[in-house]
Amino acid sequence: MRLPDFEVEQWMNDYEGKAVYNLTDTSVSPLTFKELADLEPDLLSSVVMDYGEIPGDPRLRRQILQMYQDQRQETLTLSQGCLQGNEMVLETLLEPGDHVITFVPGYAQFYDYPQTLGCTVSTLPLCPEDWSMDFEAIEAELQAHPQTRMIIVNHPSNPTGASLSLEEMHRLVHLCRAYGVYMLCDEVYKRPEAPSFSDLYEKAVVTGSLSKLYGLSGLRFGWIKGDPDVIHQITVRRDYTIISTGPLKDALALSALLHQEELLDRGQRIIRSNQQIVRDWLEDNPLFSCVMPACCTVAFLQYHKDIPSKELCQSLLRDTGIFFVPGSCFGYEGYLRLGFGQKHTDLRAVLDTLQRYVEGLD
Amino acid sequence: MRLPDFEVEQWMNDYEGKAVYNLTDTSVSPLTFKELADLEPDLLSSVVMDYGEIPGDPRLRRQILQMYQDQRQETLTLSQGCLQGNEMVLETLLEPGDHVITFVPGYAQFYDYPQTLGCTVSTLPLCPEDWSMDFEAIEAELQAHPQTRMIIVNHPSNPTGASLSLEEMHRLVHLCRAYGVYMLCDEVYKRPEAPSFSDLYEKAVVTGSLSKLYGLSGLRFGWIKGDPDVIHQITVRRDYTIISTGPLKDALALSALLHQEELLDRGQRIIRSNQQIVRDWLEDNPLFSCVMPACCTVAFLQYHKDIPSKELCQSLLRDTGIFFVPGSCFGYEGYLRLGFGQKHTDLRAVLDTLQRYVEGLD
Repeated sequence: MRLPDFEVEQWMNDYEGKAVYNLTDTSVSPLTFKELADLEPDLLSSVVMDYGEIPGDPRLRRQILQMYQDQRQETLTLSQGCLQGNEMVLETLLEPGDHVITFVPGYAQFYDYPQTLGCTVSTLPLCPEDWSMDFEAIEAELQAHPQTRMIIVNHPSNPTGASLSLEEMHRLVHLCRAYGVYMLCDEVYKRPEAPSFSDLYEKAVVTGSLSKLYGLSGLRFGWIKGDPDVIHQITVRRDYTIISTGPLKDALALSALLHQEELLDRGQRIIRSNQQIVRDWLEDNPLFSCVMPACCTVAFLQYHKDIPSKELCQSLLRDTGIFFVPGSCFGYEGYLRLGFGQKHTDLRAVLDTLQRYVEGLD
Repeated sequence: MRLPDFEVEQWMNDYEGKAVYNLTDTSVSPLTFKELADLEPDLLSSVVMDYGEIPGDPRLRRQILQMYQDQRQETLTLSQGCLQGNEMVLETLLEPGDHVITFVPGYAQFYDYPQTLGCTVSTLPLCPEDWSMDFEAIEAELQAHPQTRMIIVNHPSNPTGASLSLEEMHRLVHLCRAYGVYMLCDEVYKRPEAPSFSDLYEKAVVTGSLSKLYGLSGLRFGWIKGDPDVIHQITVRRDYTIISTGPLKDALALSALLHQEELLDRGQRIIRSNQQIVRDWLEDNPLFSCVMPACCTVAFLQYHKDIPSKELCQSLLRDTGIFFVPGSCFGYEGYLRLGFGQKHTDLRAVLDTLQRYVEGLD
């Protein structure tokens, strides 16, 4: 089964190496291996490089479960990153002919991958004023497609960084329950204290990881949380694909989670500082606008100039070294994905360069 | 799509923890993390925990390519273990309605997974005298199923440890070429100096890893090697599933491959020593027999007693602490999978206990 190019990842792969100023990264500035290893040196020194405990280190599993209200062991399985978690959920729950609802701007895995599995996909637009969902449109779609099997959400959203209020989360759950559909929610950008869909809806399967907020994307570690029967099916599939996450990954993930507050605080300081610089810059520059999210690593930056986003990103990178992923990679024009997680020497100066460059285009 | 339980992995998961004498493990006795990290401390100390170079560390890629005659960069992509490599090959090349040929005794991923993708599967028996292939039966099967898309081989084989001669490899290639079918060959048990199907056949896609012969299953690192067009398609799929293997895994895999000879020698010493003990024991015990493979970590041990293999393994574990995977997990009765990779205090004594136990069964 041939898949279309995954445009965001392909774009990152093709151009990231050329970036002088990477303003589009979705992760908090990464830890070094040494910083990670030094968190819990005793844990690391006892690691043996066999398959380890197949369901994962029990201490690690307990630590992950503490981030949820439902802490039953049978609601959790581990994966090689959040992306691989999403893939296993989609492959387990979807059948050819099923219908899927997801949103744009959105992450391409959620619309391209179900299509490859033989599903039909509706992509509903988010409202650009605040990136909120149009619940009436969702209900109309559910009514129009009785074979809808799943709604796929990224919460908070990549690329917008937007979150639903608790009331909106309940409203979405109410709709899913009324029509009996599963929800896959990629919660990779969720802070642990924020509510999880898996604690609100019995047919929600959520994924998480240490990549974005902890600055540990290189660990390639994630998890899947949901109803025990679905988790059991996913765990069976896991035997065909990864067997285990392995004791090294488990020990390092446990080390990070034992220092969760410290790592999250580190990330939040970087994000908030960058967000403030962007806010100040936006006030001075009507050429750009942005719905600023709460403390998330990403936002969707609108530019008010008539040029396709891909073209803008390519010439911007070539002429200034400033690197963005274009809105077109998320199915949306006139936008750039902006990241708040990286450390910059002088972010304001880079943003001013961006502004002058876009202003100077005819 | 619901998958059947992966019996081997399920069996390991359910019972391995209870094993006192694990005689069935497929890997060489694992290195500790410290032993692995100490091989190339400078490599490790420079690791940053971001996604790293998406195609993988270029030095690592070169080191892997050196194990093949065709060393073009575009013939290689990296994966999270050999198993995940196999999965990506199967998902990329197979379509519903395709026919697949594989062999028993064999690894369940090769017959169960294609069925889940909507393929039909023929499982051809290997000849129990020497676990060789019946080439006439393969050709008859190819003739009977013009929609055959792929032949799947595990070479050397799990569970038999058997290898084809170079002449037999050419014979299989000749058949595949004549009928235009792809070959997936899982070469996870192959020593680097042994020929690879990817160097013999343009439509062979092979997978490898550091799990078995290097004692590094806990690294969960592998690779896929084949024709550039197929590798490109698999790399596109990889964006939807793992993005990258990550810089930590890459640095540790490179460390191992820079010390390849040393690690392989270590493994071979353990295997040969265990094989000699088994050989001597078999001579004294006509109740058991085994086609002894060349230096491989596994073999398929036949017992001459009328008892189902699953039942034997369960009671053996309960009564003696000796742990085997039963032949039934490989679609074959009357056998136990025997592993040569682990260190034992007194293997002969354990084998004698096994013999007395089986003798004593009515």
